[in-house]
Amino acid sequence: MNLIVQKYGGTSLATPDLIKRAAWRVIACKKQGYDVIAVVSAMGNTTDELIDLARKITPNPGGRELDMLLSSGERISMALLSMAINSMGFNAVSLTGSQSGIITDTVHTKARIKEIKAQRVLEELAKGKIVIVAGFQGVSLEREITTLGRGGSDTTAVALAYALKANVCEILTDVDGVYTADPRVVPEARKLDVISYEEMLELASSGARVLNSRSVEFAKQHGVVIHVRSSFNDNIGTIIKEEDESMEEILVRGVTYDTNEAKVTIRGVPDRPGIAAKIFGKLAQANVNVDMIIQNVSDSGVTDMSFTVPDSELKTALECGRQLRDEIDFKDIVADEDIAKVSIVGTGMRTHSGVAASMFEALAKNNINIEMISTSEIKISCVVRRSRAEEAVKALHKAFELG
Amino acid sequence: MNLIVQKYGGTSLATPDLIKRAAWRVIACKKQGYDVIAVVSAMGNTTDELIDLARKITPNPGGRELDMLLSSGERISMALLSMAINSMGFNAVSLTGSQSGIITDTVHTKARIKEIKAQRVLEELAKGKIVIVAGFQGVSLEREITTLGRGGSDTTAVALAYALKANVCEILTDVDGVYTADPRVVPEARKLDVISYEEMLELASSGARVLNSRSVEFAKQHGVVIHVRSSFNDNIGTIIKEEDESMEEILVRGVTYDTNEAKVTIRGVPDRPGIAAKIFGKLAQANVNVDMIIQNVSDSGVTDMSFTVPDSELKTALECGRQLRDEIDFKDIVADEDIAKVSIVGTGMRTHSGVAASMFEALAKNNINIEMISTSEIKISCVVRRSRAEEAVKALHKAFELG
Repeated sequence: MNLIVQKYGGTSLATPDLIKRAAWRVIACKKQGYDVIAVVSAMGNTTDELIDLARKITPNPGGRELDMLLSSGERISMALLSMAINSMGFNAVSLTGSQSGIITDTVHTKARIKEIKAQRVLEELAKGKIVIVAGFQGVSLEREITTLGRGGSDTTAVALAYALKANVCEILTDVDGVYTADPRVVPEARKLDVISYEEMLELASSGARVLNSRSVEFAKQHGVVIHVRSSFNDNIGTIIKEEDESMEEILVRGVTYDTNEAKVTIRGVPDRPGIAAKIFGKLAQANVNVDMIIQNVSDSGVTDMSFTVPDSELKTALECGRQLRDEIDFKDIVADEDIAKVSIVGTGMRTHSGVAASMFEALAKNNINIEMISTSEIKISCVVRRSRAEEAVKALHKAFELG
Repeated sequence: MNLIVQKYGGTSLATPDLIKRAAWRVIACKKQGYDVIAVVSAMGNTTDELIDLARKITPNPGGRELDMLLSSGERISMALLSMAINSMGFNAVSLTGSQSGIITDTVHTKARIKEIKAQRVLEELAKGKIVIVAGFQGVSLEREITTLGRGGSDTTAVALAYALKANVCEILTDVDGVYTADPRVVPEARKLDVISYEEMLELASSGARVLNSRSVEFAKQHGVVIHVRSSFNDNIGTIIKEEDESMEEILVRGVTYDTNEAKVTIRGVPDRPGIAAKIFGKLAQANVNVDMIIQNVSDSGVTDMSFTVPDSELKTALECGRQLRDEIDFKDIVADEDIAKVSIVGTGMRTHSGVAASMFEALAKNNINIEMISTSEIKISCVVRRSRAEEAVKALHKAFELG
């Protein structure tokens, strides 16, 4: 079987005209002799609109009913795409997450795929049909409708590509591929032809919004080749695949930034074992996603501890801090929303030294102060003032000659 | 089990505030000690909006995908109603047509319920939960999503009430019950306390839009008592049930009218056996719903044949006429959209004579010309000029002292 799984995002399906355009795109693939599965997101902002509707009913809608509500979005787009393809003389059939055999656990609003029982999908493909699958949703073994969380349609597409041994999983979106930096910030940014799973993961977690991290993790784990490309033209996009030797030649693959984090500093914390565990245990319990953590050198038995959290979780994080007062004796807790995280990512860092120094030097030359630093094997991130973020990205893009 | 099935129409669920209001209504019923199943339609005009969306893709969307599309409407309203009830401290769970075990045939967009396997509904009720069921939709034995056609939510409610032996099936709507005539036309129209299935069927097929005919047929067949009442107040509405002796005392139960039909006349048709069969066979093949049929007395071997069809099917009917030219030699075919059908309905007609004469007299007194007449055991319908329809309804309401 020569099978291609394509995934169409909400912006590629936002209007009836765009849906017809996507239909042509699917048919073009079919005409090339491939079996095609098209995984769809909800049209445009449908998901956000449905969430708004739920919030008008109650601030805490509850996961089960929220999933029931949100899963209607893909049902609309998949039926319309299927109608469009059928009206153009090709045979399509739309299948819900449940009908496609996307079996998940029961963690509503962020379920994980446990298994794919794609018998029905295979039957329809065998009849020569184009299969349209609702992304983002599945069904639990208890027969409850579940959703996979933000960007879940990417995961659906990758999981189906793996389960059905597709040649490739195409993610069709509103950009031409993965870039060395955001082209809106750095006009000379280049589209990457190829990038490793690890690099894509680091880019995604550092602010690049092309692809959902979970889908890349899944692809990495199962060796699914992803092709990110534009739904509006036929250009070759960016291939995401297993790292190979040629990739190591590139020191830095891309520069990215994230302005949706805030910094929290707890000042005057006693410097003794178990304190950090208490603080971050509390935050974990409250489901706060802590990103960077820094502890200053101890000074006379007390220290300052800083960490970053998503803007949207800052309130909860500060509330946790207040509750910690009962357990830990610290001076005060302060929040700073005016920060940005700037990162460089590249597999080549593994085998080359001096990349960090070059980064710090480039920022210093531009008089941009570094407030926090964190590093992984293939990524270096610096926290800077939010107002300097774009400047920092431009400087780093130039310094590492990515243009 | 003391069980009440309530059905909420689209106008009762059109906004988040109305959904909260419906939630209180459901809870009030639960507080009285009943198990409650609430069957919901899609919010406001959602179904029409979805159909519009489909038409923007293609004029012929195809039944299967249209059902997939439309079934998302109830999924939204049921999830929201369930959230509202949960947020008010009661336990609710929403179930799709499929999860509720509404098994239908595979005739997409107008499927018929074959069977109700309500195991899951019963399990949830046994846990003390209020069960919200998506109206209008089901699933076929081939696991395809189906819809029951216009007004299908009424049918879902009645079918569930039958299958689960509910005390009563309440249809909650935007009017107080079934009236002797449309109160917008006849201000002195009275709400009926009780009406037989047969009378309701005749009223529904004559233009009264309170209830879908199929649901009444189903209720009649299985003896399900229906209570039509307002969702906006606690007033007792109209009970629809088996005819009993007391009902025969009422000669005429109500007056109704329908301005959505057109008259077609085929002139100069040969008056010989088999001609009518050919004409109406052709129309049936084209799925045209013919209502009244009249054939004039033959004059020198040729005759005129008139019939009425829904406005929306007039074009198809005329096309059928043109095609018949090849088989039958007739003079010409003319359409008249400027008509209305005015009907009186009452079980008492069965045992009383002279009702028809009284009707014709009342219309004559008001100088309203009768163009076609048709009668059933408990109904008399007259076609009049559309401009005179409301006048005719008022005159008949007065003549039969229904005020």
